[in-house]
Amino acid sequence: MTVSDEERLQRARVVLRESGLDGLICRLPEDVLMLSGYWPMNGFGLLIFPTEGEPVLLAPEAEAYLAADAWVSDVRTYSWGLVDSGDPFVAIARLCKQATADLGLSGKRVGYEGSFEFVAAPSVSAEPSVISRVTYNILSEAVGRNLVDATGLIHKLRLIKTAQEIEKLRLVNEIARMGLQAFAESVRPGRSEIEIAATVESAIMVGGTGYRGVKVARSWASVMSGPRAAAAYKPHLLSTSRRLVEGDIAIIELVVVADGWWADLTRTRVAGRARPEDCERWQAVVDAQQAACAAIRPGVPANAVDRAARDLLTQRGLGPYFVHHTGHGLGLRYHEPEPFLHPAVSTPLQAGMVTSVEPGIYIDGWGGMRCEDDVLVTPSGVEILSEFSRELEGQPAEWLAKCL
Amino acid sequence: MTVSDEERLQRARVVLRESGLDGLICRLPEDVLMLSGYWPMNGFGLLIFPTEGEPVLLAPEAEAYLAADAWVSDVRTYSWGLVDSGDPFVAIARLCKQATADLGLSGKRVGYEGSFEFVAAPSVSAEPSVISRVTYNILSEAVGRNLVDATGLIHKLRLIKTAQEIEKLRLVNEIARMGLQAFAESVRPGRSEIEIAATVESAIMVGGTGYRGVKVARSWASVMSGPRAAAAYKPHLLSTSRRLVEGDIAIIELVVVADGWWADLTRTRVAGRARPEDCERWQAVVDAQQAACAAIRPGVPANAVDRAARDLLTQRGLGPYFVHHTGHGLGLRYHEPEPFLHPAVSTPLQAGMVTSVEPGIYIDGWGGMRCEDDVLVTPSGVEILSEFSRELEGQPAEWLAKCL
Repeated sequence: MTVSDEERLQRARVVLRESGLDGLICRLPEDVLMLSGYWPMNGFGLLIFPTEGEPVLLAPEAEAYLAADAWVSDVRTYSWGLVDSGDPFVAIARLCKQATADLGLSGKRVGYEGSFEFVAAPSVSAEPSVISRVTYNILSEAVGRNLVDATGLIHKLRLIKTAQEIEKLRLVNEIARMGLQAFAESVRPGRSEIEIAATVESAIMVGGTGYRGVKVARSWASVMSGPRAAAAYKPHLLSTSRRLVEGDIAIIELVVVADGWWADLTRTRVAGRARPEDCERWQAVVDAQQAACAAIRPGVPANAVDRAARDLLTQRGLGPYFVHHTGHGLGLRYHEPEPFLHPAVSTPLQAGMVTSVEPGIYIDGWGGMRCEDDVLVTPSGVEILSEFSRELEGQPAEWLAKCL
Repeated sequence: MTVSDEERLQRARVVLRESGLDGLICRLPEDVLMLSGYWPMNGFGLLIFPTEGEPVLLAPEAEAYLAADAWVSDVRTYSWGLVDSGDPFVAIARLCKQATADLGLSGKRVGYEGSFEFVAAPSVSAEPSVISRVTYNILSEAVGRNLVDATGLIHKLRLIKTAQEIEKLRLVNEIARMGLQAFAESVRPGRSEIEIAATVESAIMVGGTGYRGVKVARSWASVMSGPRAAAAYKPHLLSTSRRLVEGDIAIIELVVVADGWWADLTRTRVAGRARPEDCERWQAVVDAQQAACAAIRPGVPANAVDRAARDLLTQRGLGPYFVHHTGHGLGLRYHEPEPFLHPAVSTPLQAGMVTSVEPGIYIDGWGGMRCEDDVLVTPSGVEILSEFSRELEGQPAEWLAKCL
């Protein structure tokens, strides 16, 4: 067992009590991670979390060494994938029924992840295991008819990050900087979008794996260059074999995961020398991001932050090209539903929320630019978790060395 | 519209008629791809496929250029992700209801993907969009109470590949070879597992993107070396920063996707010179694979193929170390449920099935070895789709140049 996140566990119990739930069963790796510290790699883990009392964790035998690090003393395993394993779902159903009974949750009001239409990629991201009728039947067989969709409650739980979770987000952003550094060094005439993307992903895999104990570091880099960069928010994330020529703008959309914790960043660079017009537009984007960050503090409505970025771009004559929202929540996934920095959302920000701040402009025939960071709402304002050079051109600074 | 796979469409209609279904609604990218040729990138696509008549495809506006390549003339789009998009699920629900009504499917018996507990990673694999209650409610609102789980039917459809699909699988295996070549060149003393994995993934991204028109080529390489290789089937897929030393065995588990079509391969190499004992064991693994392939032809029970591999390893004294099945179906996903080359499965093989053939041995304290290829069952026997060098050591041949 590693040191448990007591702040997280206590808050979860408070929210469950307030919601009149006797427990919660988590099946998605992102939520198992939040409530147990264990990020299921493959197969699946099932966390049966009673509102009162100690949880039970079900995990494949092959992951027992990972589950042993969870903040759960009662870990029960099943065989998966060996020639004599039998049907693992039969074993899981039996263990789930037994654990639910042991915890006194049979027939009780228990929540599950019913409406996760988007899920975080698991560690084995080539083949996510998700919640279909198979899981639903296992859970409802164990719990009974009082199994309720707790998706809203889970997102409410996820909205305010704990101190331990913020440390995990600082860590993934440290790893993400290795990729941004590689991007800055790679945007040169003659390189192709896909070569740049591969270089960035490689830097993160190699630099991030084993870094400060991280087991799994992976990224998804999408590089869109020249006039194609205008399509960088449509939302098309496709690097091609297009080669950069002198003066081309290149946007990178960079998603990074480190042991289940996510960063979502964007930088824009020019191959070679930037035109004065490009520098001017880029400065507007960076200023819009700064204006948005300056507006962030607890109690401020989400749309006031959006307005700060939007007004600045409008003043510079670029308003019509800022076609999307200013930011979205994230942490246990690439996108979380709240906060949502959008003109129509007036929900006030709270300390502990984490959001992207990502103004961008997209002009057909010219290209696009976006500057995206992940920030934490602090009691007094904002902390930029992903601070990194916002230079558009020139020799990239040795930013990594300065930051780490 | 690209050239439609008439063989696929006709077979789908036959199976739907036989099952008494009036139509099928596909939401997962893997099934939308199978029945329309369009692989949804992001957001989601919804294919409403009537048993009689022409289908309707719903797609995000930003993907209209991709959906235009689908074998569907009636493509209807909705806005997603722009500041004025509104709630895309409201738009999708409205379009789905309208399309279902237009096709006369309201109230009819219509299948959907209810029990896909494992899904193929979509193109934007950092954040898969999957079927939760959100999709279920949209579909049942449109169709009514006769919405039925058609997972078994869909897998039956997927079991026998068409000529056009086999071409797609040949293509992804050509790209996979670029990765295997990089693996063969990278397994050297001093290199780390994660460096080798990153080199392989990079070779596939850079070489595969744009190769013969491929838009998206991505891979997941897991390299396990030295005594760690004994864990290569548990099923733990984790490359670490461990550096290879002279004589280390290194296994690569390599998953590759090219525009929605998958390959699943394994090779084993030794860093530097292999010990005689290692060469002998490797030869047994390769011979077991060959014995399995030699047993494959239509009408042969799945377990007879498994037995061919298992008997050979038993004869060489390695039987107890072959702890898993001999192969599994694949194509539209990393793993498909059938065929399953396992001692307990006597279902006969049929021409057009695609399966992995992957005997392996894992010995605690020593390490592990596996040789995995993807093969097509032909009318007369077998075609190895992924043919590539099976050398354990030495200078890798210029295999790529010979094969392509």
